[in-house]
Amino acid sequence: MIECVPNFSEGRDAAKVRAIVDAIAGVAGVLLLGYESDADHNRSVVTFAGPSDAVMEAAIRGAGRAAEVIDLSQHEGVHPRVGVADVIPFVPLAGATMDDCVAIAHCAGRGIWSRFGIPVYFYESAATIPERRRLEKVRRRGFDGRPPDVGDIAAHPTAGASVVGARDFLIAFNVNLATADVGVAQSVARKIRESSGGFRFVKAMGRFLASRGCAQISMNLTNFVQTDLDAVFEAIRAEAPVASCQLIGFVPKRAYAMFPGFFERAENFSASRVIETRMKELGAGEG
Amino acid sequence: MIECVPNFSEGRDAAKVRAIVDAIAGVAGVLLLGYESDADHNRSVVTFAGPSDAVMEAAIRGAGRAAEVIDLSQHEGVHPRVGVADVIPFVPLAGATMDDCVAIAHCAGRGIWSRFGIPVYFYESAATIPERRRLEKVRRRGFDGRPPDVGDIAAHPTAGASVVGARDFLIAFNVNLATADVGVAQSVARKIRESSGGFRFVKAMGRFLASRGCAQISMNLTNFVQTDLDAVFEAIRAEAPVASCQLIGFVPKRAYAMFPGFFERAENFSASRVIETRMKELGAGEG
Repeated sequence: MIECVPNFSEGRDAAKVRAIVDAIAGVAGVLLLGYESDADHNRSVVTFAGPSDAVMEAAIRGAGRAAEVIDLSQHEGVHPRVGVADVIPFVPLAGATMDDCVAIAHCAGRGIWSRFGIPVYFYESAATIPERRRLEKVRRRGFDGRPPDVGDIAAHPTAGASVVGARDFLIAFNVNLATADVGVAQSVARKIRESSGGFRFVKAMGRFLASRGCAQISMNLTNFVQTDLDAVFEAIRAEAPVASCQLIGFVPKRAYAMFPGFFERAENFSASRVIETRMKELGAGEG
Repeated sequence: MIECVPNFSEGRDAAKVRAIVDAIAGVAGVLLLGYESDADHNRSVVTFAGPSDAVMEAAIRGAGRAAEVIDLSQHEGVHPRVGVADVIPFVPLAGATMDDCVAIAHCAGRGIWSRFGIPVYFYESAATIPERRRLEKVRRRGFDGRPPDVGDIAAHPTAGASVVGARDFLIAFNVNLATADVGVAQSVARKIRESSGGFRFVKAMGRFLASRGCAQISMNLTNFVQTDLDAVFEAIRAEAPVASCQLIGFVPKRAYAMFPGFFERAENFSASRVIETRMKELGAGEG
């Protein structure tokens, strides 16, 4: 079993998002765990799992459908993005290895290019160029003057590029502040993130959330086993007034067991947010 | 540039073969060099070339179309085969490496399984199980009790499996004997082939060719640089009466330059059988 959590650059038009989700869920063997759209960021995150080849095919079809329904040249949104099927990570679940996910990522990338003409960059464990391991660096496309890993960057007029990779489970967690001052969120983000001397395995950025009229700290927690999530939250609370929290996607049972309070703080948390529970609900659990 | 030379298990129904060829040639960037059908063997060999990802997509689509038009359970023919899209080798041409072809073979195999439900074995340089390097061994499917490299062997009711790989250029050359005694052809094949002590890099088998009412020695010459092709032919002629010769597919310019008499002996030889000449004719040559 592997998981795939693609990000699409559409979070406002529900029919377009549904078209992409249907293309993914239509592949035999694929288990759609859920999807979430964010109007401010104008992006959606779809979570699905299944046998590696079914997941690969679903990811390719999702990218193809996204290129049909989304026009990047018309896109607006606060989140950085390089394409309509912006980021496509494959994650090993039970019985799968990172090497499996690298192979699937490479084949998915080739398929996305050969079937839809969307150029592809490989990142994280699937990177073939060391400087492209980190997503943030790949996003500054053209940074190295080198062509994409697959295809021609100028090939598609409206789909941009896709960044396809293999990585470990990642927790996406947003903290909304009781202030509209995006400078505060940016300052807190700098304090807590690894790249500027904060917590290891924490990525964070501050931004303004128009729909709530507040500043937000958007975090990626890339290694919940080695990060004290409660300490991260306390560090935020010590610096700025927290209004609410939101979880994006799913959480491994092990992470929830280690830091239940952290996750229960999210306004959208429920037992179904634990991936093992969600898979069992959908009839694919081990139990 | 890479070349692909898939073998399909249909050599009698021209409309079915044409449907497969059209699926391949319809991929942008693909250069169809030619195709040949053999009614006795009930198989067709298609030769095409192009940028790696276009060639990969064309190979996948060719396999999918073959599964639509051919029913292996109804198949008759003297050539051993495991599937409707029986063998799909990728060959490095100018600017490509064997590693490129291995990557393409693996992704093509995954695509053939995930899109059409046809299980795939990897052979030659693309083999992931050492015992599957040689095509003859893979053909005895189930020989090792292990599952295919991709997919489930029982998955497809009428398409069988595909053997997908990466290999160097190979010359396929048939010698028709002036005898109907298949035992003679088999005896000569044993004398000349490497596996029973003959010439290095020569594979050969003897069989009866119903359309001509004669015995035939069917050869694969896997390394023309290190095999004296004239000596191979003389060894055959010393043992049995030769009626005619046939070349299947194409010959590299270098091989033709080394042994012009060997190739010109084929009844179907022409300058267009030299791959560099053929590509130039089609407007894709270097010159």
